[in-house]
Amino acid sequence: MNSKLWGGRFQGTTNDLFDRFGASIYFDQELANEDIEGSLAHVKMLQHTKILPAADCKKIIQGLESLQKDIQNGKVKFDYHYEDIHMNIEELLTKKIGPVAGKLHTARSRNDQVAVDFHLYLKHRLPKTIDLITGLQKVFVKLAEKNVHTIMPGYTHLQHAQPISYGHYLMAYYQMLQRDKERFQFNMKHTDISPLGAAALAGTTFKTDPKFTARELGFKQVYANSLDAVSDRDFALEFLSNASILMMHLSRLCEEISMWESYEFNYIELSDQYTTGSSIMPQKKNPDMAELVRGKTGRMYGHLMGLLSTMKSLPLAYNKDLQEDKEGVFDTVHNIIPILKILSGMLSTVKVHKQRMKETTEKDYSNATELADYLASKGMPFRQAHETVGQLVAKGIKEHRFLQDMGLDELKQASNLIDDDAYHVLKSEVAVERRHSLGGTGFDQVAMQIKNAKKQLKE
Amino acid sequence: MNSKLWGGRFQGTTNDLFDRFGASIYFDQELANEDIEGSLAHVKMLQHTKILPAADCKKIIQGLESLQKDIQNGKVKFDYHYEDIHMNIEELLTKKIGPVAGKLHTARSRNDQVAVDFHLYLKHRLPKTIDLITGLQKVFVKLAEKNVHTIMPGYTHLQHAQPISYGHYLMAYYQMLQRDKERFQFNMKHTDISPLGAAALAGTTFKTDPKFTARELGFKQVYANSLDAVSDRDFALEFLSNASILMMHLSRLCEEISMWESYEFNYIELSDQYTTGSSIMPQKKNPDMAELVRGKTGRMYGHLMGLLSTMKSLPLAYNKDLQEDKEGVFDTVHNIIPILKILSGMLSTVKVHKQRMKETTEKDYSNATELADYLASKGMPFRQAHETVGQLVAKGIKEHRFLQDMGLDELKQASNLIDDDAYHVLKSEVAVERRHSLGGTGFDQVAMQIKNAKKQLKE
Amino acid sequence: MNSKLWGGRFQGTTNDLFDRFGASIYFDQELANEDIEGSLAHVKMLQHTKILPAADCKKIIQGLESLQKDIQNGKVKFDYHYEDIHMNIEELLTKKIGPVAGKLHTARSRNDQVAVDFHLYLKHRLPKTIDLITGLQKVFVKLAEKNVHTIMPGYTHLQHAQPISYGHYLMAYYQMLQRDKERFQFNMKHTDISPLGAAALAGTTFKTDPKFTARELGFKQVYANSLDAVSDRDFALEFLSNASILMMHLSRLCEEISMWESYEFNYIELSDQYTTGSSIMPQKKNPDMAELVRGKTGRMYGHLMGLLSTMKSLPLAYNKDLQEDKEGVFDTVHNIIPILKILSGMLSTVKVHKQRMKETTEKDYSNATELADYLASKGMPFRQAHETVGQLVAKGIKEHRFLQDMGLDELKQASNLIDDDAYHVLKSEVAVERRHSLGGTGFDQVAMQIKNAKKQLKE
Amino acid sequence: MNSKLWGGRFQGTTNDLFDRFGASIYFDQELANEDIEGSLAHVKMLQHTKILPAADCKKIIQGLESLQKDIQNGKVKFDYHYEDIHMNIEELLTKKIGPVAGKLHTARSRNDQVAVDFHLYLKHRLPKTIDLITGLQKVFVKLAEKNVHTIMPGYTHLQHAQPISYGHYLMAYYQMLQRDKERFQFNMKHTDISPLGAAALAGTTFKTDPKFTARELGFKQVYANSLDAVSDRDFALEFLSNASILMMHLSRLCEEISMWESYEFNYIELSDQYTTGSSIMPQKKNPDMAELVRGKTGRMYGHLMGLLSTMKSLPLAYNKDLQEDKEGVFDTVHNIIPILKILSGMLSTVKVHKQRMKETTEKDYSNATELADYLASKGMPFRQAHETVGQLVAKGIKEHRFLQDMGLDELKQASNLIDDDAYHVLKSEVAVERRHSLGGTGFDQVAMQIKNAKKQLKE
Repeated sequence: MNSKLWGGRFQGTTNDLFDRFGASIYFDQELANEDIEGSLAHVKMLQHTKILPAADCKKIIQGLESLQKDIQNGKVKFDYHYEDIHMNIEELLTKKIGPVAGKLHTARSRNDQVAVDFHLYLKHRLPKTIDLITGLQKVFVKLAEKNVHTIMPGYTHLQHAQPISYGHYLMAYYQMLQRDKERFQFNMKHTDISPLGAAALAGTTFKTDPKFTARELGFKQVYANSLDAVSDRDFALEFLSNASILMMHLSRLCEEISMWESYEFNYIELSDQYTTGSSIMPQKKNPDMAELVRGKTGRMYGHLMGLLSTMKSLPLAYNKDLQEDKEGVFDTVHNIIPILKILSGMLSTVKVHKQRMKETTEKDYSNATELADYLASKGMPFRQAHETVGQLVAKGIKEHRFLQDMGLDELKQASNLIDDDAYHVLKSEVAVERRHSLGGTGFDQVAMQIKNAKKQLKE
Repeated sequence: MNSKLWGGRFQGTTNDLFDRFGASIYFDQELANEDIEGSLAHVKMLQHTKILPAADCKKIIQGLESLQKDIQNGKVKFDYHYEDIHMNIEELLTKKIGPVAGKLHTARSRNDQVAVDFHLYLKHRLPKTIDLITGLQKVFVKLAEKNVHTIMPGYTHLQHAQPISYGHYLMAYYQMLQRDKERFQFNMKHTDISPLGAAALAGTTFKTDPKFTARELGFKQVYANSLDAVSDRDFALEFLSNASILMMHLSRLCEEISMWESYEFNYIELSDQYTTGSSIMPQKKNPDMAELVRGKTGRMYGHLMGLLSTMKSLPLAYNKDLQEDKEGVFDTVHNIIPILKILSGMLSTVKVHKQRMKETTEKDYSNATELADYLASKGMPFRQAHETVGQLVAKGIKEHRFLQDMGLDELKQASNLIDDDAYHVLKSEVAVERRHSLGGTGFDQVAMQIKNAKKQLKE
Repeated sequence: MNSKLWGGRFQGTTNDLFDRFGASIYFDQELANEDIEGSLAHVKMLQHTKILPAADCKKIIQGLESLQKDIQNGKVKFDYHYEDIHMNIEELLTKKIGPVAGKLHTARSRNDQVAVDFHLYLKHRLPKTIDLITGLQKVFVKLAEKNVHTIMPGYTHLQHAQPISYGHYLMAYYQMLQRDKERFQFNMKHTDISPLGAAALAGTTFKTDPKFTARELGFKQVYANSLDAVSDRDFALEFLSNASILMMHLSRLCEEISMWESYEFNYIELSDQYTTGSSIMPQKKNPDMAELVRGKTGRMYGHLMGLLSTMKSLPLAYNKDLQEDKEGVFDTVHNIIPILKILSGMLSTVKVHKQRMKETTEKDYSNATELADYLASKGMPFRQAHETVGQLVAKGIKEHRFLQDMGLDELKQASNLIDDDAYHVLKSEVAVERRHSLGGTGFDQVAMQIKNAKKQLKE
Repeated sequence: MNSKLWGGRFQGTTNDLFDRFGASIYFDQELANEDIEGSLAHVKMLQHTKILPAADCKKIIQGLESLQKDIQNGKVKFDYHYEDIHMNIEELLTKKIGPVAGKLHTARSRNDQVAVDFHLYLKHRLPKTIDLITGLQKVFVKLAEKNVHTIMPGYTHLQHAQPISYGHYLMAYYQMLQRDKERFQFNMKHTDISPLGAAALAGTTFKTDPKFTARELGFKQVYANSLDAVSDRDFALEFLSNASILMMHLSRLCEEISMWESYEFNYIELSDQYTTGSSIMPQKKNPDMAELVRGKTGRMYGHLMGLLSTMKSLPLAYNKDLQEDKEGVFDTVHNIIPILKILSGMLSTVKVHKQRMKETTEKDYSNATELADYLASKGMPFRQAHETVGQLVAKGIKEHRFLQDMGLDELKQASNLIDDDAYHVLKSEVAVERRHSLGGTGFDQVAMQIKNAKKQLKE
């Protein structure tokens, strides 16, 4: 006996190792719900178009619905002898309703069936992803609101550059997430297309109604070309690419969390809920989750690279190589969803050491630009102002003093343009406050960013 | 003497190897035009906002415009001692107009300067890319129009699956390119934002007008957050990702071109213009360009992976690592533009062996589905129909005969449902013709695809 | 109550989602045997060095051995509340033998513990991998032996280039596999080092004996530096890189299998055991396994890229990011082992269409080099000979005739140097036979390659 | 006229864009020396075997040697109309010595010619790479020698874990580099093989002597199989993989340099020679080079991924895709050589803030393990000791005191096993000193590591 549903012309039996290795049921069972959803839409179309008698269709629909419940109740066992989720479900359906189950596959192929399952899978998960990004954005906005006036050093090259508002820093991540969200929204465009009706690759001679199935499944469009419908995995590549960029952003955040939680920076303290200890060092409080998120970025890049490599140079239409399209996507979903949740929780409970942050901006040279701008605004060419202040800084470093510690005479020696009001601009709070330029770190600007973000979040 | 424009506080001199290795002028000179374009907009803003006196601004503008011409006329030599394109141009400007050139950098930093250059660079190239994709789409449509009725085997697993229209096959690539185009169009959304005004990272205390510069440069928006403005390279990653997916599509096409040009397939013949010979084998006519395009796919994937890796875990805001953002993008532009042109030329001049294509569908079993569908349409459950035809095929293979070669009695032995009209459906032309389902390979469907594509191309 | 073994200083409880997401027990249970193996060696060392009393050690040893059996008998359930395999096993041990279990962790940390587990894991699997490669090499040699005199077209640019021996082609894969084997052998060098004794990162104040544990576990060396011992994952990266190159080779083979099994090439036929059918097209016999192997290449590349990305820029010593080191390696092991087995089986049962292969070399221009070499050996500069034959080929193509079909007069018109003996060299069998140069496709050369390979396989 | 050397059978002319795009002379001119070296060996073999008359060979040799000088003197201009370096050199040779130049290509093809060039290229650069790694190792050893007794916090999870010797930290990088070196040494095994003699793919009918050319060129071996000889790029993939792992190590180092140079860590100060300033912030001293090295890691990963992708699924033997093998390798060479030099210089001139490093280990809880080990060595199960000390740490954090600040009574309350001698083990210097275990951070161990390294460097 040959349990394979494609076995008619075959004489030998396949090798068991081959069967197990070739089977995808180990992972594509994740598509069980989508597979039944797709089959239900397909059989309703077969009934609607009278390709199958209504009585047969009703039996099949009842069987599928009953099977759906069985799966939800965990009553079902899948078997690698039936290769994949499609064959497993057809087999289970046959056990339930007999040979009429075999009619379900009329005017359909596994090629368009798996494609519709995979489209549905992402179609269901994209909104969830987008919602969780919105959730994290809200956490950033809330934290930013509390920290508009929190002063911290702004870094370039990990060196103190200019003092900034911590709220401003937080809103930078809000912006990155906004672009991530827009990318996932665009991702929907190429996901929300129904491949059902393409059959194996060429469409079918049955008088099917692909628009009917598309409507049943809530798809906006039907693929215009059947070869394309079964070969296209762009929507999955877009998802992996978008997830990679999202993770890149989060890895930057987590790198900073890790650094800021260090003894040396001491800018923030994560809640006990989001840190772990050491099995050997009792004092450790490790920002494990931030590190794990950072580390998992590599995995996402790997999935993207993997699918790009797999699809390279594949002739049309379907090839078994495409079986490799799913695991990376599933794993990405399984990771970004908890990651977005955990980061929301982590940032909601973080303790900010505001005093420490500010102090580091008061004992450094990050106010040097202020003095250079001061000179430039008094008419000195910026390049000369830069040079002048640079020499003052060099002197300061040598003598272990900051610009604000130098006497006016001393400053005047560097340039006569410097007056008493220079000391005011040297204060880090003033430096931040005065950066009124659009998108700058000035308190008014940060407040405006927050206001705009709140409006955007309501759209 | 210290030629570096940031040298004020420095006492040692940098190491020459270091200078050469750290310099980016070797490749970022590609941004020369964009750098001047950005500077012109900046100085006009400085004049408009009265941050600089009008007289100074006019001198700077004249100097920049004169320099622009020098560059276009190839009169300019860049020098690695001035690190990058920004410093080189400022130095050249200083030579032209004296120390007033130093005022140009007021209220600006190299961080927002390089960002605006890079945004402009892609903003200028995206429409070109999109146009060339449209051009290639038109070639596909034109070739498809001539081949609606050309029959060829449709493949899955590189096995003859079902006969299809060659026009249908060509339109599958049209559809892929349409998605590519939409991705590059979306790419514009995050490219078309001006970072100018963000200065080093925090905005500036000068009363600048970033919306003015954005308007001057034709940008739709201004970055909402200055930290984000100087740290963001999403637009470049989107471009590399889009180019990777585009190249993935083209690698599939080129794989097929390579195979179809082979002795064994013999489906097409490329024009002499697009093939090369061998230095040792006088008979060779190699589809080199198709292979080269296929091979270059790896390079694009590498650029994407490279930038994703580089950006992973980078703390805000600017870090020197970001200098690595450009070469991959430049190389991608330098490749996809000629590739799109060459493929358009290659496909416009390809000779199609229609007779050979069709013949292979007449001496094979790719009509087996027809018989199975025939049986299913007569009421046999599809699974049983599949099994029945499978056994006939097995018999045929053993006896070296095709389905159409078997007598009616013989067919009836397999199933009584088979009648004389079965021979009609076994013809490959009929098989194609009958696939009327939406998006299918039926001639009417292909004609409709072409009609819709032409409409879409005019939008 | 705090079930975490590192909980002393913690006051809050961790978040459940966090616990589940941070836990590695889902996949690192694959290290269960290695973890116990490592613990046994460690406790024996603690006894040997008298760091722990012998009585305690004996209890722990008995407990571990009993647990080992439980695991082998599938009696054990792991729990994500205990994070990872190390904590799970310690917890299970505590349940078995009480608080004395807590002494096992003396002078050890999870950092060196997980490192030793991972080293052992690969140390056990590398020889298996190497053996399976040898197995596949033997299949190639055996098949080559049967096909020394089988003539096929040799390809460059997928164009017929020169006729070759199919045995020669097969031996090319033998050579690739030989390099793969050497790489995995070299991989052992950096795997076969014991990190046990490094403790958390700095070694320990206990008078441990890392050489003792290394000997117990069969390691050749001990890490010279404890920081390096816990941070090093080079051995895993080497493995992933080696597996990627191996898969690259196999993807080339599988690409050819897929092509050669096609209707158009028809060079080979895979056994039914190693092909599958279609759910919709009864005639299909798909070389699925070859395609799946080809497709899985992308996954391996992804794992390599993932770990490289994860490790980029990680400060010393251990970071949680390193938890991401294992899944890619496990998955690679789970794939390459069956792949090597399946390909051995597939190639052992392949049917070679020798006649078809040879025929394609008799009706083509792949003998053009022969004529050019013939002319060059008669004194014509090779470039001129190439040009002369090129023109004959052009003529042949135009008139649908091959070189061997042209009359001597006709040939002489092209060059007077051509004589009757030219027809002999134009035969494909002769062309192959005459390629006596070292490593060439001449039958004697192929036979020698096979002889040398057999010798090498016995080493 | 057709300037291509393969033009005999071609009628059309190739397209100019095609010519430029397909040409590799833009980058493969880097192989000019190797190409002439290979040709010289080839013509000497042709003379030795009497395939060509001695007189012809002498002319060709003189021509090639003269051309070699021209190239060294920068007198030569390459032209894309001659596609690649091989054709360009042959053309230049023809101009020099006339049509006899055409005889050089006897019994050779561009396929084995480019392979030999590329092998020679890496064969020449591997020893250089290895030497530079040794040079950097020496810098680490020298710096370690000066810092055996420099105490710093050892980190895990970027948290203070246990105090270590800075010399120990430095020697960890020595060890990584040692493995890098061994990998590049192994890389030589598969590089040091001569493909010359394989001709196009099948060997040749001329009585060549591939061992002669191999000897002339200093190759250890000759390829055993001609198909393999022209298709194999394993040696390049090994190089890219090795370079990726090397860069991964260096990215970890550079990440730490960047962090340690920060205001907050303040552990080291790079020399002015190896830092740069800011165009807008006069106080900045940026560790640019460390960041650039870290950033360039992505590029190397990209090159590896690029070539792996390009080679995936390529049928044997040569395909034009392989033209893409070189640029990534050249770029990798151009980067790792200066990087190794620059890092050697940078570390040779770094200023270490020993006092600051040590102080951070005296005001933290990184001595907690000491107390736990102290308790364990007095018989308390380690898990209980860990818990006990964890509670003391929690108390300390709450009350802003360190363990060494607590009174003996207070400590005894936690455990009666604690005595006065506990204060000794709490000192960070003592903690380091006592870690005598093999490979540990104990001063004696670090000294031994240095001694062994010096011995190893002399080998």
